[in-house]
Amino acid sequence: MDKPQTLKGFRDFLPKQMIVRKKAIDILTRVFESYGFEPLQTPTLEYGSVLMGKYGEEADKLLYTFEDRGGRTVGLNYDLTVPTARVLAQYPELPKPFKRYQIQPSYRAENTQKGRYRQFTQCDIDIIGPRTAVSDAEILAVIHESLIKLKIPKFTIHVNSRTILYDLMKQANIPQDKWNTVLQTVDKINKKTKEELDIELGTKGFGEHMFSETIAPLLEKISLQFAATQTTSDPYFNDVISYAKEMGVVHMQFNPSIVRGLDYYTGPIFETVVDEPAIGSVTGGGRYDNLIQQLGGPDITAVGTTLGLDRLCDVIEELHLWSDLPTTVTTVLVSQFSADLSHQAVATAHALRTAGIATELYQDPDAKLEKQLKYALAKGIPYLMIQGSDEIEKGTIILKNLSTKEQESLTIEEVIVKLKQ
Amino acid sequence: MDKPQTLKGFRDFLPKQMIVRKKAIDILTRVFESYGFEPLQTPTLEYGSVLMGKYGEEADKLLYTFEDRGGRTVGLNYDLTVPTARVLAQYPELPKPFKRYQIQPSYRAENTQKGRYRQFTQCDIDIIGPRTAVSDAEILAVIHESLIKLKIPKFTIHVNSRTILYDLMKQANIPQDKWNTVLQTVDKINKKTKEELDIELGTKGFGEHMFSETIAPLLEKISLQFAATQTTSDPYFNDVISYAKEMGVVHMQFNPSIVRGLDYYTGPIFETVVDEPAIGSVTGGGRYDNLIQQLGGPDITAVGTTLGLDRLCDVIEELHLWSDLPTTVTTVLVSQFSADLSHQAVATAHALRTAGIATELYQDPDAKLEKQLKYALAKGIPYLMIQGSDEIEKGTIILKNLSTKEQESLTIEEVIVKLKQ
Repeated sequence: MDKPQTLKGFRDFLPKQMIVRKKAIDILTRVFESYGFEPLQTPTLEYGSVLMGKYGEEADKLLYTFEDRGGRTVGLNYDLTVPTARVLAQYPELPKPFKRYQIQPSYRAENTQKGRYRQFTQCDIDIIGPRTAVSDAEILAVIHESLIKLKIPKFTIHVNSRTILYDLMKQANIPQDKWNTVLQTVDKINKKTKEELDIELGTKGFGEHMFSETIAPLLEKISLQFAATQTTSDPYFNDVISYAKEMGVVHMQFNPSIVRGLDYYTGPIFETVVDEPAIGSVTGGGRYDNLIQQLGGPDITAVGTTLGLDRLCDVIEELHLWSDLPTTVTTVLVSQFSADLSHQAVATAHALRTAGIATELYQDPDAKLEKQLKYALAKGIPYLMIQGSDEIEKGTIILKNLSTKEQESLTIEEVIVKLKQ
Repeated sequence: MDKPQTLKGFRDFLPKQMIVRKKAIDILTRVFESYGFEPLQTPTLEYGSVLMGKYGEEADKLLYTFEDRGGRTVGLNYDLTVPTARVLAQYPELPKPFKRYQIQPSYRAENTQKGRYRQFTQCDIDIIGPRTAVSDAEILAVIHESLIKLKIPKFTIHVNSRTILYDLMKQANIPQDKWNTVLQTVDKINKKTKEELDIELGTKGFGEHMFSETIAPLLEKISLQFAATQTTSDPYFNDVISYAKEMGVVHMQFNPSIVRGLDYYTGPIFETVVDEPAIGSVTGGGRYDNLIQQLGGPDITAVGTTLGLDRLCDVIEELHLWSDLPTTVTTVLVSQFSADLSHQAVATAHALRTAGIATELYQDPDAKLEKQLKYALAKGIPYLMIQGSDEIEKGTIILKNLSTKEQESLTIEEVIVKLKQ
């Protein structure tokens, strides 16, 4: 066999990482459910016709598609939005509004880089139903509460609206069929200088100083108006912001230059960035009123967001946010003293498990105690229990705290009380 | 677009089903962790060379393999054992014994039938480490406790040992290179008559009455010995049974004709069947001491089992075992009285969520109350809250229990106390 390895952009999650991921998923699930989002799961493989032509030409090249043994073109899900649009079309009986969350991997044959993987787990929440500002605000509230509960220390939800951007395009006298082209350049405002943006728009056929002389002053004006009045030219967006504040959202900032790459947004748009590490956005979303139908679903408006589990866990790990999280699921290792006392060790482990304590019984009754101790330390198990013939005679057990090195002689009942704390 | 549909053998899980699956996974995870099994996740796609030639010729035909955009042959994981063998080879620093659980889909291009899907979720537990009877017994204990905790009413863990079967083959004077061929026939004992088994062995080149005159009496003898002494000719297996009993395993039955299809088992083998519905085995596993190395991992012995989530959930649903489980994650729907009172509804929902109550706020402030009630009933939400201008003036809320139809007028604090019960 070749050197055992994972494919580029695909990762294993060993127990220590899995403990972080599972906890993050658990926290997100609780927040999602507290807002009435219901769980949904769709398959990894979809008909190629469900996936292709839905994301634009560039994205189609990133799809993992192939012909299956039945001659069907099939593909791995590229996101969770298209499968959900299919679900809405396939099960018209689902009650609306359909508020669902979905936590699953998606697959894209992208160039990999920090925070970008070919298999990555998306945590999507979407409200598919009538166009009401309460819905958009709830998405913001869920993002906000999720990041607070995950203990992400410094984050900002940047909010904007396509309506505001399109107003700006009108005021700049840009023909409507060029709006998205120009906005793709505006989207690079944090990555490029004004001069570079002028040049980029120049190559797209606009005047020499289009960005610096027309667009930048208009963006400035919008920002000033918002600073003075806390409102924009888009009343729907103003309502969303107002409801979001009532729902407790504070780490939110109006940013008129946020565009979100995808063309399908039709109203408010949101993306969340963290101060550190430099990892790109950790959430992205907005209102997309025509997409469900375009994707083959019913004619119904929608708003939602993705929270990127991989990037969020990268932040948690790099900033050591959860350094008090155990590195193992196990509370105690019951050591084996000798082969003839193995049945006693089994009985002790059984008693602890029955009491609800996560207990590992050392497997090999012939291993030396030192080896068993090393194993417990390597895994980071907090407690070790030792029971030799002396202890069995006295009806006690030695409980050793492996971080403080303290040990005490206790009855099984006392051990249970202590470890249950 | 074509009619929206899932691929044959691939399924969507809508919220009601997801609530069952999530609860089942939660129960299994708790049991696995209480025995010290640590979580592991491997990618959906692996190098083709990791997967191919590992499962035998027949299985290779069921692999989903394709060429990716980089010209690599890649494939969807066929099971969770081969990826784990790769993990053991790739990360030699992992502490041993490595006790891991893995709950993920596997993919096989099989002919679909009841309980057999092309994407199915496996819940694997394995102990990779020294060959000790305690390990095999722990696998049995986890299976047993899992099915009890899932409330599966009538199940039997059939246990046997390859060592016992090979002893039988010797006593029947069958040459060693034919053992697995003969055992494949023995494996069909519950599906075929003795005459059919005789004929099948005849076509494989054995004597006319090989099954009925030689094998069946030997099986009978083994069973009688076990009934009289609770022991078999395999001392290791006897130890496993004895430890398993000490660990509380009762729904267990020695069955000398259990073979388990795969050739790689080297000791005890286990499979669990339920009395109803007729759905095949819900767990399968055993000791496989050479497989990890054959699969590209280190030279280390192992024992483990798969619990099939899809079949277990099929049993739970078909027997209505969890009929008291809610069909929604939501406890209460906060209705919208009118557009001008929308901010009050938002505030009420926010207060309930802050108190930890799963609350859905009806999205559309212009919808009639009747429509909102219908929505709550369609989703099975237990409570509806109504707050009109009268209630706001009095500082109260109407809380309606949608199953008893009772309603009462309460303060928000009283509502919180009531719903938290």
